[in-house]
Parts: sequence; structure tokens; C-alpha cells
Amino acid sequence: MACMGVCRGFTQHHGGSWLLLAFNLLWISAAQSFHVSRQFAPAQPSNPELTYKTYYFNQKVDHFGFVEDSLFKQRYLVADSHWKKPGGPILFYTGNEGDIALFCNNTGFMWDVAEELGAMLVFAEHRYYGESMPFGDLSYSDPKYLNYLTSEQALADFAVLIRYLKESIDGARDSPVIAIGGSYGGMLAAWFRMLYPHVVVGALASSAPIWQFEDLVPCNTYYQIVTNDFKKSGPGCSESILNSWAAINHMSETSDGLQWLSNAFHLCSPLKSKEDVGAFKGWLSETWVSLAMVDYPYPANFLEPLPAWPIEVVCKFLNSPKSSEKELLQNIFQAVNVYYNYTGTAQCLNTSQTASGSLGDLGWSYQACTEMVMPFCSDGVTDMFEPRTWDLQAYSDDCYKQWGVRPRATWITTAYGGKNITTHRNIIFSNGGLDPWSAGGVKESLGDSLVAIVIPEGAHHLDLRSNNAYDPKSVLVARSLEVELMKKWIWEAGNN
Amino acid sequence: MACMGVCRGFTQHHGGSWLLLAFNLLWISAAQSFHVSRQFAPAQPSNPELTYKTYYFNQKVDHFGFVEDSLFKQRYLVADSHWKKPGGPILFYTGNEGDIALFCNNTGFMWDVAEELGAMLVFAEHRYYGESMPFGDLSYSDPKYLNYLTSEQALADFAVLIRYLKESIDGARDSPVIAIGGSYGGMLAAWFRMLYPHVVVGALASSAPIWQFEDLVPCNTYYQIVTNDFKKSGPGCSESILNSWAAINHMSETSDGLQWLSNAFHLCSPLKSKEDVGAFKGWLSETWVSLAMVDYPYPANFLEPLPAWPIEVVCKFLNSPKSSEKELLQNIFQAVNVYYNYTGTAQCLNTSQTASGSLGDLGWSYQACTEMVMPFCSDGVTDMFEPRTWDLQAYSDDCYKQWGVRPRATWITTAYGGKNITTHRNIIFSNGGLDPWSAGGVKESLGDSLVAIVIPEGAHHLDLRSNNAYDPKSVLVARSLEVELMKKWIWEAGNN
Repeated sequence: MACMGVCRGFTQHHGGSWLLLAFNLLWISAAQSFHVSRQFAPAQPSNPELTYKTYYFNQKVDHFGFVEDSLFKQRYLVADSHWKKPGGPILFYTGNEGDIALFCNNTGFMWDVAEELGAMLVFAEHRYYGESMPFGDLSYSDPKYLNYLTSEQALADFAVLIRYLKESIDGARDSPVIAIGGSYGGMLAAWFRMLYPHVVVGALASSAPIWQFEDLVPCNTYYQIVTNDFKKSGPGCSESILNSWAAINHMSETSDGLQWLSNAFHLCSPLKSKEDVGAFKGWLSETWVSLAMVDYPYPANFLEPLPAWPIEVVCKFLNSPKSSEKELLQNIFQAVNVYYNYTGTAQCLNTSQTASGSLGDLGWSYQACTEMVMPFCSDGVTDMFEPRTWDLQAYSDDCYKQWGVRPRATWITTAYGGKNITTHRNIIFSNGGLDPWSAGGVKESLGDSLVAIVIPEGAHHLDLRSNNAYDPKSVLVARSLEVELMKKWIWEAGNN
Repeated sequence: MACMGVCRGFTQHHGGSWLLLAFNLLWISAAQSFHVSRQFAPAQPSNPELTYKTYYFNQKVDHFGFVEDSLFKQRYLVADSHWKKPGGPILFYTGNEGDIALFCNNTGFMWDVAEELGAMLVFAEHRYYGESMPFGDLSYSDPKYLNYLTSEQALADFAVLIRYLKESIDGARDSPVIAIGGSYGGMLAAWFRMLYPHVVVGALASSAPIWQFEDLVPCNTYYQIVTNDFKKSGPGCSESILNSWAAINHMSETSDGLQWLSNAFHLCSPLKSKEDVGAFKGWLSETWVSLAMVDYPYPANFLEPLPAWPIEVVCKFLNSPKSSEKELLQNIFQAVNVYYNYTGTAQCLNTSQTASGSLGDLGWSYQACTEMVMPFCSDGVTDMFEPRTWDLQAYSDDCYKQWGVRPRATWITTAYGGKNITTHRNIIFSNGGLDPWSAGGVKESLGDSLVAIVIPEGAHHLDLRSNNAYDPKSVLVARSLEVELMKKWIWEAGNN
């Protein structure tokens, strides 16, 4: 049942290019919709000796009903070369919307601390992603098969799997388990500790926007953070982007203008309709958001490789917000080109190529249309985006068209507590000051053992990445505190 | 939407006889099965002025999936004449397997303390019981409709309902809510606080056998407690019952013997087969168990009225365990007759008439065949019952025959923590020393705020009954402590 995998090997097998995980959100206004992508910053395991084995566990398709009694194979990866048995801790990655091998490769922090903690690493794949398909190839063929794609089912998978691991692995019976996750995986890690405190002694929830629901946080903070990242990365930068929308709109009024835009941006498919222009602007917005998420202090690779502090590089092209429309838009193109064509090999830019063309998009779209209803808005005044209100009804209608389901906007806070979570213990919420997703994160500690860590110079879950020579001090301090707290939880588990 | 109900009126409407709720358990050995009934002791509200209103809330049939998006009307009862608004507490009865009006009538404790706490009382009906049928008359027509009968769905109902109440009732927004329940309702109250600590500030779980699962407690303690109740209620009493099984078995070997047994026990349907005898013995066992559950210090009415300390009355007939087989069995008949024919009006005894002929049996049978898998066993040495092992496979096969589903014996402890629940706070576990269900209860405090209360002279959730002049001091102390703890939770909720 086990096959061998090697983290470096795996990455190399994919041509050495960093892989990407998406956290897509449908953001639908009355008239149109576009995607906002959330990307996973890859982090290469710093220790090439670390290898993992791949396993499959027979998991119930439905934990909450008994009529559907079928099983599916949930994939999980185990790396135990540093595990001190019996009783050494288990660091359990609560897989999110993507292939679990990617998380194995992209959560260098766990690999970095395994030896110090004498820990086994387990990476559990989230159902409906990667290879863990409840109905095989049919899983996405019809909405009825998607009925079991919920966070509750995923958490139940994790709980059942951990029970099995502790019962079946020699020496693991008394091993304390710590949940670790980033982004949606961070939300799952936090919620897992809340709902299953008997299964995990604590959770590290990195860049987990557990409050990006209903009206728990203002819907426009997310875009304000993106805007601030650009504002402070170069003079005139955010203003240039703000001004670009009117220029695009003006240019789009004539067919000559559309043609000019298509040429100026080297678009693979020329703009022809209002819808095309809407999609084009959505694609641009997504690019700015993506840059904010991955504004790391050292070069990193995504769909395309990026330089260190990429927003600063982008902003070098955007220092003349008051220039003519055409000049402004040509500068915008140069800026976007940094993101999509840093190596200069792209023949044209494809606006349907989002930063997240990878596996998880479809599943996340379903999740966003059911449980994960995150309101976003912008006003063009406190942010650099076009004004857009949050319209739940239009969002719901769009979901119904796409999936035949309607979102339940109030369920997540009913199930997991919203802001009323102070009864829980042993959860670390870490957030990066540069990361737009910190808008929905827990940024102030809620008592002794619900610890918030803010990394001012950090983008999206920088702390989960491998140590790097260019890491700002704040992330080193954060990782150090995280390790200390985990040690404390482990110690307490052994002394209670 | 509201209709008026009056608690005394309601009871009188049913002819003044106490109503009964059942908590049935399938107990299946390789060869046969029989029911063990768990009964709710009624408690008349001591304040006849207290009235309630009946409401219906549009509840999702499936909280954990989005394909089934239909609604059903969940019934709930509200009594707010003592409620101090704004902000006065809400005592929320987490309805169990039966008509919620019965719980309203049978949880006198809540009515007794409402004024002192300035509390609103809410009694929420459990889905698939009483009037709260997710698919109306079809709900029990096919196992597929029963798919949403789980404890998780019921808890989600409660959470969604409370959110609605706090948002819709003027003055309730900041009201702390305390979950209260007895028996399965007590399990729900405890689990509700564990999973939804953001919804309820604490829980009173009375006679809640949350550990009667897997091997958390020995499977024979339940019957040992029943046995002890009889042992100490009269010389030779438990020994008489122990000896009766062999006598019945011997008597059943001949058709004359069967005829004699049928006559001696005034059975409405004479015994004819081995299966009949098995059912007859099951019915006897259930009677002894039921007596143990309702061994209250004052007269109370069930299916039939009972005297105070009914086991003592029963044991008066069972002081000659060494008498001849026929004499012994005639004594057993006299004893059983106390339970089924105290008023002397029954023409014959009906072994298919369990102590729990009421509404909830069918639903509980399904629940016992899915989540609520409670192992029981007896050995005839440490208890007065025939030896019987716990055979999960046979149990599962029987469930599959009956409902087309198989029980998942390990799910409840995975979902709710089994014995590993010390991270939780603000739960009172009360148990009666005479109550067989205390076998699976929490009888020692697990820290400052997981408080166990044992009422040595108490049968099944005596503390939830109205105050009574014959109450033993231990239950008065228990109720007093419960009120103090609830006041503490309420105070803390207002000062955090």
C-alpha cells in the first residue's frame, strides 16, 4: 500500500517549476463575476533526506448519514525518519483544496522542525482534491456527487484517520497530534482543534481567514491591504492602478480602443465585448491580489518565476499615475508582465490563465457556493479597485446556475463560532501584514492559549515556508514562538 | 404561529395519567434480541401558572450537505413569564427521543428554577420525534428518509434555532443560554456544549450515559446496578430473579410447562415457541430494568401507576428464592404485577407491551442501529440476569435486516471524544446511584468546571423532576449545586 516519494524528487519530476495551489473565491456583483485567486507560496524542504511514503485509507464517503455507506481511498503521506517512538508527536497537515503532495512540498516549516520535535509528519489529503475522490472520476460529474464536499466531512476524515493511525502504528498510541495548516488548511486546522480537541492537542493556523464571513470584518479590508502593499512599494504605484480602470473603460468605448488594448497587453485573445473587458479587468485585479499574497522577500516561483519583493519590481513601472491614458496602460502592461512573463518567454498573455489554473479550482468554486461564503467589496476610494458591492442574492443566483446549490452564508459561523471562540485553547493564529487574507484573520490574542502572531513583513503564510536567508526577523521570531508553543502543548499532553 | 399550551392542562387532557418516554436499546445476542427500555420519569410542574407557547421553526433537513435543501417545521415550546429581559438567561431543553410536550411536562426542575433565574424556558423538539418530521408522514416510510436522523443534525438544529431566537426575540440578543437535558437529552446537552460552546455557556446533562460506548465502561455494570437495586430492597429478592430464569427454562421444556407459565403470568397470548419464551424473558428483564430506572421515593405514574420505592414493594413478593419452581414463578408474577397491574384492572399481561409503547421507539431503534451503539452484557454471576455476551456482528446484521443500515460503533467517541473530554468546561454530569444508566455516566468531576454530581438515592434523572416533599436530601443538594453553577455561568457570561 505504500509507495515511496521524495520531496525534492517530486518537485524535480515536475520540471523543477514550483507548483501552485489555488484558493479561488467567486466574487459576484449583480452584473458580473470574477475570480480572486489565492495562491500557495511554495517552500522547498530544506532537508533533502526527508522522504515520505504514500498511503490510502478507506474513508466513509458520508460521516453524517448512514444510507450512503460507501468508502473511498483518502491519500495521506507519512514522513517518519525523525519520529521518536514511542510517543513522539505527530504534526498533521490538514490538507486543503489541492493535491496533498503539493502541501508536502510546500510546507517546509514542518520538515524544518521535525527533527527538533522528534515528530512524525502526516499530510492528509482533503476529499475531492488530488487523488482522494469519493466517487472516482464521477466525483465532479454531477452536483449530487459533490454533496459530501464540506469542511465538516473533511474534518471527520482527519479525525477518523488519526484514530486509525494511533491504533495501527506501533508506538503512536500516546503520540500527541498537532494540526497544522495554511490558508483554508489553516481554517481547517483551527476548526479541527475546536471540534476535535480530543484528537489534536493544538493547532497552528497560518493565514487562516476564519473571520472572512458575514459581517465579522469589513468586506473591503482585503482590498485595502492589497492597495497598501502597492502604495508603500513605490510612489504613484497604487494611484496608477486606480487610474487604470477609468482608462480601460474609456478605451473600451470604441472598437479601435479595444484593439489598442488587446495589442498593448499582448493578449492572446483580443477583447471584443463588454464581457471580455469585464473579464480582463477581473484578471488584472486578480494579478494585483496575487502579487500581494506572494510578496516575499526572496525570489520564488509560481506559475511563472518571480523576483524578490515582486511588488517593488512591479511598482517601478507604475510611478507616473498622471501620464496619458495610453502611457498609463502601457505601464500597467509592463507591470503585469512582471507577474506573467518575468522570464520573457511568453508569446502573449492569456486572460483566462489565472494564477491558479491548477487542480483545486473547481472544488473550491463548489465550496465557495455552499459553506465558504466570503463577502468582498471595494470602493475605489480607500482602495485602488473599481467600486463593487457585495450582493449575496446575485452570488446565490450565480451559484445556483453553476452548481444547483445555494450558499448558506450563516452556517460557518453557526458551526464554528465566528468571533465567539474564546472557550477554545491551544490555537496559534499567524498572519502576515502584507497578506490580504489577514483581513479575515485573528490578529489579536484571545487569552493565554489562543495566540495571535502577526508578521508585519509577511505575505501569505510565510511562516509555513522553509527557513530562508532572506527571511525577515519577524518570521524567524514567529516560527520560534510557534515551536515553543508546540513544545508546550506536547509537554502538557504528556503530563496530564 | 403560536398556540397556547398549559402544562397542567396538557397532562389532564391525557386523562391525568403520566406519560412515558422511551429510550430503547436493541440488545442482540447471536440467537435473539430483546428490548431494554429506558423510561422518563415524569415530573409535574409545581407552578400551575406556568404556560408555554408552541412555535415552529423552518429548519434545514440537512445541515451537512447542500443537495437536499428542503425545510421542515421543528416544533419548540417557549415559556417566558418569568423571563427578565433584556438579557435574562434562556434554559434550553435539548429534546430527545419523544414528543417535546412530554419533556415540557416532565422536567419540573426547569419550571421550578425559572423565577429564581429570571429565565426563559425553551423546549426544542428532536427531529423525527413528536411533530418535527423532516418528511412529514413519509419520514418513517423508508430508510432513505431517515438518513437525517442523527445526533449531529439534531445539535445543528438546536444551534440554528438558538441563533434565530436570539436574533428575533426582543431582548434575547445577549441572553446566555444553558442547555439542559436528561438521558439521551442529557447526552445531547453535554455534546451541544462541547461542539457549540459559542452557543451555550454551559450544560446540565442529567443521567447522560455518554460513556456507554465501545469499551469505555464494562458492558455488564448496567445490569449489576439493576441487580444491586433489587439486592438491597429485600432479602432474597435478586436471588429470586436470578433463579427464575432456570425455572422458566425448565418449565418451557414441555408444552404443559408452557401452558402453566402462560396461565401463571396471566399472559394475553400464551407461550408457544422458543422465540415466545425468549421474548417473555426479555420482557421480564426489561421490567426489572425499568423498575430500577424509576425507583423513586414517592408514588409516580408510568404506563401504570407505581408506589413509592417500587422495588421494595416488588421485593416483598420475592423473599423465597429457594422455594419450588412453581412457587418461585408465581412470586415473580406477583412482582411483575406490581409494575403492570398495580391498580388491579388489567385482565391479562401483554408481553409485547413494553414499558415504552410510546412514540419514540421506532426512531430510537434507528438511532441505536446507526450511531447509538451501546454494548450491554450480563453474566448471571455478578448480576441476576441470564448470561449474554455483546456480539456486535450479530447486532449489525440485525440492524441491516431491520433498517438497511449498519451501525458505526466507533463514530460517537470519535465525534464527541469518549473519555478524553477534559478540555471542555461548564458541564454538569448528574447521575443517580440507583439508575442503571449511571453505569455509562460521568461520576467523577474532571476538573473545576466539568462537575460530576452523584445522587446516591436517585433513580433516572431524579434531579430534573419537580421538587417533592419526599425527595432525599441528596437530590436537594444536587439541585441546589446545579442552580449555583448555572448562576455562575450566567454571571461569567455577563462579565467577560
